[in-house]
Amino acid sequence: MVDTSLSPAAVEGGILDEDRDHVTDGIRIDVEELSEKMLGSWPEQRRAARRLTARPEFHRIEGQSLEEYRDTVFGQLKLLVENGQVHRAFPKQLGGMEDHGGNIAGFEELVTADPSLQIKSGVQWGLFGAAVLHLGTREHHERFLPGIMSLETPGAFAMTEIGHGSDVASIATTATYDAETEEFVIHTPIRAAWKDYIGNAAVHGKAAAVFAQLITNGVNHGVHCFYVPIRDDDGFLPGVGGEDDGIKGGLNGIDNGRLHFTNVRIPRSNLLNRYGNVDADGTYSSPIASPGRRFFTMLGTLVQGRVSLDGAAVLASAVGLQIAITYASQRRQFNAASDVQEEVILDYQRHQRRLLPKLATTYAQTFAHDELLVKFDGVFSGKRDTDDDRQDLETLAAALKSLSTWHALDVLQEAREACGGAGFLAENRLTSLRADLDVYVTFEGDNNVLLQLVGKRLLGDYGKRFKDADATTLARFAAEQARGKVVNGTGLRSLAQTVADFGSTARSVGRLQDEQAQRELLTDRVESMIGTIAGRLRAASKLSKAEAAALFNQNQNELIEAAIAHAELLQWEAFTEALSTISDPATKKVLTWLRDLFGFGLVEKHLAWYLIHGRLSGQRAQSVTAYIDRLLARLRPHAVDLVDAFGYTQAHLRAPIASGIETERQEEAAAYLADLRASGNAPVDEKATKSTFDALNHPKKSRK
Amino acid sequence: MVDTSLSPAAVEGGILDEDRDHVTDGIRIDVEELSEKMLGSWPEQRRAARRLTARPEFHRIEGQSLEEYRDTVFGQLKLLVENGQVHRAFPKQLGGMEDHGGNIAGFEELVTADPSLQIKSGVQWGLFGAAVLHLGTREHHERFLPGIMSLETPGAFAMTEIGHGSDVASIATTATYDAETEEFVIHTPIRAAWKDYIGNAAVHGKAAAVFAQLITNGVNHGVHCFYVPIRDDDGFLPGVGGEDDGIKGGLNGIDNGRLHFTNVRIPRSNLLNRYGNVDADGTYSSPIASPGRRFFTMLGTLVQGRVSLDGAAVLASAVGLQIAITYASQRRQFNAASDVQEEVILDYQRHQRRLLPKLATTYAQTFAHDELLVKFDGVFSGKRDTDDDRQDLETLAAALKSLSTWHALDVLQEAREACGGAGFLAENRLTSLRADLDVYVTFEGDNNVLLQLVGKRLLGDYGKRFKDADATTLARFAAEQARGKVVNGTGLRSLAQTVADFGSTARSVGRLQDEQAQRELLTDRVESMIGTIAGRLRAASKLSKAEAAALFNQNQNELIEAAIAHAELLQWEAFTEALSTISDPATKKVLTWLRDLFGFGLVEKHLAWYLIHGRLSGQRAQSVTAYIDRLLARLRPHAVDLVDAFGYTQAHLRAPIASGIETERQEEAAAYLADLRASGNAPVDEKATKSTFDALNHPKKSRK
Repeated sequence: MVDTSLSPAAVEGGILDEDRDHVTDGIRIDVEELSEKMLGSWPEQRRAARRLTARPEFHRIEGQSLEEYRDTVFGQLKLLVENGQVHRAFPKQLGGMEDHGGNIAGFEELVTADPSLQIKSGVQWGLFGAAVLHLGTREHHERFLPGIMSLETPGAFAMTEIGHGSDVASIATTATYDAETEEFVIHTPIRAAWKDYIGNAAVHGKAAAVFAQLITNGVNHGVHCFYVPIRDDDGFLPGVGGEDDGIKGGLNGIDNGRLHFTNVRIPRSNLLNRYGNVDADGTYSSPIASPGRRFFTMLGTLVQGRVSLDGAAVLASAVGLQIAITYASQRRQFNAASDVQEEVILDYQRHQRRLLPKLATTYAQTFAHDELLVKFDGVFSGKRDTDDDRQDLETLAAALKSLSTWHALDVLQEAREACGGAGFLAENRLTSLRADLDVYVTFEGDNNVLLQLVGKRLLGDYGKRFKDADATTLARFAAEQARGKVVNGTGLRSLAQTVADFGSTARSVGRLQDEQAQRELLTDRVESMIGTIAGRLRAASKLSKAEAAALFNQNQNELIEAAIAHAELLQWEAFTEALSTISDPATKKVLTWLRDLFGFGLVEKHLAWYLIHGRLSGQRAQSVTAYIDRLLARLRPHAVDLVDAFGYTQAHLRAPIASGIETERQEEAAAYLADLRASGNAPVDEKATKSTFDALNHPKKSRK
Repeated sequence: MVDTSLSPAAVEGGILDEDRDHVTDGIRIDVEELSEKMLGSWPEQRRAARRLTARPEFHRIEGQSLEEYRDTVFGQLKLLVENGQVHRAFPKQLGGMEDHGGNIAGFEELVTADPSLQIKSGVQWGLFGAAVLHLGTREHHERFLPGIMSLETPGAFAMTEIGHGSDVASIATTATYDAETEEFVIHTPIRAAWKDYIGNAAVHGKAAAVFAQLITNGVNHGVHCFYVPIRDDDGFLPGVGGEDDGIKGGLNGIDNGRLHFTNVRIPRSNLLNRYGNVDADGTYSSPIASPGRRFFTMLGTLVQGRVSLDGAAVLASAVGLQIAITYASQRRQFNAASDVQEEVILDYQRHQRRLLPKLATTYAQTFAHDELLVKFDGVFSGKRDTDDDRQDLETLAAALKSLSTWHALDVLQEAREACGGAGFLAENRLTSLRADLDVYVTFEGDNNVLLQLVGKRLLGDYGKRFKDADATTLARFAAEQARGKVVNGTGLRSLAQTVADFGSTARSVGRLQDEQAQRELLTDRVESMIGTIAGRLRAASKLSKAEAAALFNQNQNELIEAAIAHAELLQWEAFTEALSTISDPATKKVLTWLRDLFGFGLVEKHLAWYLIHGRLSGQRAQSVTAYIDRLLARLRPHAVDLVDAFGYTQAHLRAPIASGIETERQEEAAAYLADLRASGNAPVDEKATKSTFDALNHPKKSRK
């Protein structure tokens, strides 16, 4: 069936190229400075990774069979090793650099070459390798890491089971200690306990970090991680079995599969025992007494997966927007304002509405991700590694990963639609990127589950702060907060501030571009939502377990919405913080508009809430949308500079439609028409002959 | 990287299976009656098509190479011919049945076998064949249709050009008449005029319906359609060239490609001349004097493409929901309410929020589509074929196709996420369906462009009704409308009704379940938005073309939003109309809740508008969300019945996760745990040993 699209939206208005300078009032972004800013805190590592990802041998080849594709990506992993790209996080004595932030920054950049390459290397070094590194001890590092780092031992990270996805604590695979032989027996008792969706499991994996319930002396000490050889060159080892997951919705360069174990024996020393050890006689010991805390500590060491997915998702959004906005700035469709030339599609208001707010969000997420990466590096380097830091890191990672991965899918879809039929061709990359990124929203924690964790953290902060508080305490706190800045890095913001300055919020939003007004509106919403839910849940302590669960469930959707509001606020603050570091005045001005577009986009999205809760009057609420329209028109002339500042070259974009061929086609068409007109051979339009006729017969009508 | 998801949302609440009857208060949908209803006005044709699509030889085979896949689908097209599935719309004297509605109903059903099969057969018979049928005359029918119907002549529909997607009127391919040889010369003067995204163009097409500017005697008479042979068994014919579009984001069973023509000569008689003819001497004549009207009439005959995409999109949504809701009703994750058994994930409020409103929308779209199909059949059978009918049909098709194709993408994505990692496996069909449906939102008219057409129609209706109206006229009209029913099939609704009964709207919404209140809220919004935009555009008549275009552009986004509001209202009315035809009281009750969920979902989505414009108070607005939450809980026990009523069997769903294996796994796991407990060999939980310890040392804490 034919594609009658390619254009986004059909009518008038617009800025001609020659008008561009006029429209911008001479303001022009300093793309170089901004590009540098967008590289974040590890610019050298990103630049090095981008030099690598520009090389054709790392690029995805469309149309390969499943087997070929998996082999290609496996070969690319070896190339990464040869190019020293993947060892930055490992110990110095083993050839690593102990550079945690830089490692993730470089790793994320692989997404522009091929998300399969990114994720497969993530499986090998970020999950399998990181499990040995963080859950094992020195002896394990020396024994296992060299083979992992060199890819001599491709490995799997066997945590998820068919029966339990995000609920890792409930997995059913067992590791029972046999003191007689000093071995653990790894066993999969039921079909639901098969490990599933495991990268490297179907073909390449030789070993696996297997998560199982550790049982010794008749006691289940909860989930621990074991190093289990699974395959040699002849296939599965005795007792190990599995299946290929086959074709997936994306990431088909990775051999995901299922694994099961039938009384597979491994030496006691293969327990990765940093957080839990079993002596030869079967005695269990752990530096962390509480089983719950131990579990979360172990899983917490694997937070880098979420951190890196957040970063990779933001980069994929950047690539999508750079393709779509570049194309939209060259392509013309429909002539309304002029009979001679058609309109540039980015001049259509609807097209701006579709792409520019997403550009603003991608900027916010870029800056927010850098803050997350700095926090991650602080914890993992040990520079800032308190319990609070770790908890903040986890909350921040969960909040940002959820929003940025969903956003990437939205961006890539809108970008593909905005490029019409051309956007649907694999050669223009948008559909493949979207298909590959799809699973980012559920792996490393389903976004809805992660956001619920964020929501619970916010409720916890609320509870801590207002434990046994009466109304007077609340009011005093509110007044104190009203004059202070936001308190907590990633936890609940200056709670109840609005009790005090609700009046001023309503007034100050009059100056819509006022930074403080935006902050107050966004902060206020998170606080109020959490406070309301907390109030409703107060009764839970007096209820039975089932009743309390039902009460919580009635508030589940709203709690997740509150968590989203919190994550949006964090992004807004990161954007605002970044503004203060930009020196070029024109760049700062344009980025401030972009930040405002993001901030007021959030307010518009949640406008009903602001109206219902009396934070905005109806009239003010309408001006939010009007202001957004104004910002779109202001930002339009800077759109190409803003995507260029992401810093990707054609070697990274690799989309013919963003390469300039559209401009060439437009110019060829314009020249053809001009020649035809000049030749005097141009056919006359039937309408033109008609209007002469009409003019004679219906003089009034023809004037229209 | 591992998928730690599979679950949607993590905590408590819920309905146990055994409680189901209690919770439903004994009400149970009559699935059989409802299924029949859902089949719409051509149930026999749908049933016949479903018998066919249940057969394995029509099913998509995942993992084929591009070439194999294209061959498979081409072979399936031959099977369709053999099974008499595709000739219903053709003339009786040529072996057809002249059954237009039934033809489309059956055609749509192919989507569950494979969207590539649907669209490739749409290219052959719905576009290429329909162009000959509707734009050609008897001589063309006899000469070309037999080969088209039998698939002896696979053909392409060569309308879209690289340089002009949705703007068909501006295509640049020319067909210049040469009176000396009585031939048309088909020519592609520039790269931008290459036909692109053309199904059957890359490999299988032997001929094409080529759209080109008809030029004779120095006058361009606008776009006409020509029958052009393009290929024999040895490849392209002289002067014809092309390229393969290669891999696409979906629909890879179809060989889309590009075509170009270098002075290709075809006989005069190959002009499909129903709406425009050229005599031997080059004299042009047409039964439609106005070139603009002629163009829209010709394109209007091809509306069935949009009609069928609407229907196919709704069926794809149904399949996605049946898979996700079936799985969600079996899968369990996290135990909060009970220590013994985990929660069924569809009992989580968030999971209900994610799926059930989409189910309500899919029902509304099912009923709306049937109305569209009836209208289509009326026009194409000649039973109801006035100019107004045709215009209504086009507006309705544009409005419904836009919303249902976007909805299908949303549904399939949400369904895939709701099924977690399992949803990402190709075997569970959600990702492939989504990839294939992606292009439905831009082909046969980009959704944004189509919605703008709808918006312009609404503005036109407004203009006609209030031409030269003064305030008194408006008020009188409003008062008249207030007591009447909605006026126009698909055009603008009882405009300005709210001027009169705004007060009563605000009051009547108190009874949230009141049908009339929902209708008024939805109608009011469309009318007010269009009225506002019309008011702003009034100045345009006094402006220059460029200024008028700029003014329109400033309102473009809002106009498209108004068109969406209009389409939503049409869907709501179709759902409401369908309710009145259901006889079983329990079914009617449950479906009324579902309709309310749809209606109040729309009100909630646009809540800010209702608040800003004083249609709802803040308090009432809050109760909208509360009421939706109540409806979700009420509908939950009926969710499986509601998806079963779509009427698809496992042969249509073909998703292992929806086959019952999840229940088997749950039962195996429960039996294993029960056996383990009974054996006395179950390991003790470390927490249990700890809490004894804690109870001794911290008696207060341990009670929590």
